[in-house]
Amino acid sequence: MAAVVEFKKSPSKILKVGRGFELSGVDPQSTPGYPGKKASGVALLAGQDHRLDVLQEMLFAQGQFGNPQRLLLILQAMDTAGKGGIVEHVVGSMDPQGVKVAPFKAPSDEEKAHDFLWRIEKALPAPGFVGVFDRSHYEDVLIHRVHAWADAAELERRYKAINEFEARLSAEGTTIIKVMLHISRDEQKERLLARLDDPSKHWKYSPVDLTERAFWNSYMDAYQIVFDKTSTDVAPWHVIPANKKWYARIAVQELLLETLAKMDLAWPKATFNVPAERARAVQS
Amino acid sequence: MAAVVEFKKSPSKILKVGRGFELSGVDPQSTPGYPGKKASGVALLAGQDHRLDVLQEMLFAQGQFGNPQRLLLILQAMDTAGKGGIVEHVVGSMDPQGVKVAPFKAPSDEEKAHDFLWRIEKALPAPGFVGVFDRSHYEDVLIHRVHAWADAAELERRYKAINEFEARLSAEGTTIIKVMLHISRDEQKERLLARLDDPSKHWKYSPVDLTERAFWNSYMDAYQIVFDKTSTDVAPWHVIPANKKWYARIAVQELLLETLAKMDLAWPKATFNVPAERARAVQS
Repeated sequence: MAAVVEFKKSPSKILKVGRGFELSGVDPQSTPGYPGKKASGVALLAGQDHRLDVLQEMLFAQGQFGNPQRLLLILQAMDTAGKGGIVEHVVGSMDPQGVKVAPFKAPSDEEKAHDFLWRIEKALPAPGFVGVFDRSHYEDVLIHRVHAWADAAELERRYKAINEFEARLSAEGTTIIKVMLHISRDEQKERLLARLDDPSKHWKYSPVDLTERAFWNSYMDAYQIVFDKTSTDVAPWHVIPANKKWYARIAVQELLLETLAKMDLAWPKATFNVPAERARAVQS
Repeated sequence: MAAVVEFKKSPSKILKVGRGFELSGVDPQSTPGYPGKKASGVALLAGQDHRLDVLQEMLFAQGQFGNPQRLLLILQAMDTAGKGGIVEHVVGSMDPQGVKVAPFKAPSDEEKAHDFLWRIEKALPAPGFVGVFDRSHYEDVLIHRVHAWADAAELERRYKAINEFEARLSAEGTTIIKVMLHISRDEQKERLLARLDDPSKHWKYSPVDLTERAFWNSYMDAYQIVFDKTSTDVAPWHVIPANKKWYARIAVQELLLETLAKMDLAWPKATFNVPAERARAVQS
């Protein structure tokens, strides 16, 4: 296994969407902040699994003792960009006991009969949990904008509602990490062809993927507007170059690690008399 | 890493609770069917992670295409027996996208106002999913029997209701694996003391654990009755000696592998015209 190489610059800083951010200026092929190549990135991912696992267990433990803190990772991307790989290879290293993955597909009739945030609210992580949204309420301002399923006024209402919603979650103790995995149009084509050429991947392909692909530029515009309107102090967006899957994975892992490290986690103090319980146990 | 040693006899056969089974005849220290020691067991666990992951992905893929099959692993045990370790180290090797872990603690007021199977029904895995119950409806015939929270007639009603419930799940496409992790009374004492001696484990300890420990023999009797009454053809129990954590983990992993292998899984066939889509993709 290659030597582990660490990030030189913190992903939570250099990948964060700030004022004046331009999606078109991000090279999906790049590896910002990371000086290593694939082999060292793969080694880094494996090498940090345990640290992530321990921090998540601490978060979970605190959640059992009344601490309201929880983490919500929101994943958005064009098809094939690697959301599933992040869930399997980064999120998958944490204890399933404390992780809640919520995929958002086309809404059901019942969901459509409610406000767009209704189904989101129901899927939020409880205290101590790491919640992962595979797609999210942002679909309601992405695909809905691209296909004009919502008019301009309704879209404005939604951006505002999203910011208020996320501010409320943050005030309640939820730390929100919003991630867009950014691949290039050419990379998507290669990945779609690779799926079509592998029968074990056909189940992941749908003809709709190509239909949506035709709207690539509209999607990029819709993402840019999302970043402009909803990258807030309490819930900033991060755009992660994702043509190199190994880079996207270590970048998200590092974001999770940095975020958990800032949450001031510790093992809950015993709520019982330890020596007395020890004596009882010895006698038992 | 030690050489991988495989099971000589299938856990799904030799650990299965059949007619005339006596819990008191199972040595919690033993490693039935497995000729290797700890190091080879640990190597086996790691070596089979990938196979388990692929089978689970196939189950998930089929679930997306109308196949009703799903898997439900029910874990029961005395405190400290290692349910959490099974979830983290065996279940944790599968893709979180297709796994649903449901812990059952003391019921809420709303849950208590319903029949005991109400909250269980709500936590069942959807088609394609692997569901894991950390405790289950069996608490309603275990702790409830031990403390006489239910009278004899009510307990009889529950055993019957459980068998009918599980038969219905099975008919709907759910394969049920019921596992009791079996530790000895002495082993539990050592593990409780170890928790008390490690501040990072205090959150897992509760004085109630020792209170329940005092009812050890009543619990063993209650488990024996559960096995007698609810180990059915469609949902058999397996008693897994669990004093050696590494053995319990490979035994459960092997049970999952054998069960998935019997489910006749395959990658779903494409529901689209592959060459036509390929041509579209090339043009896109």
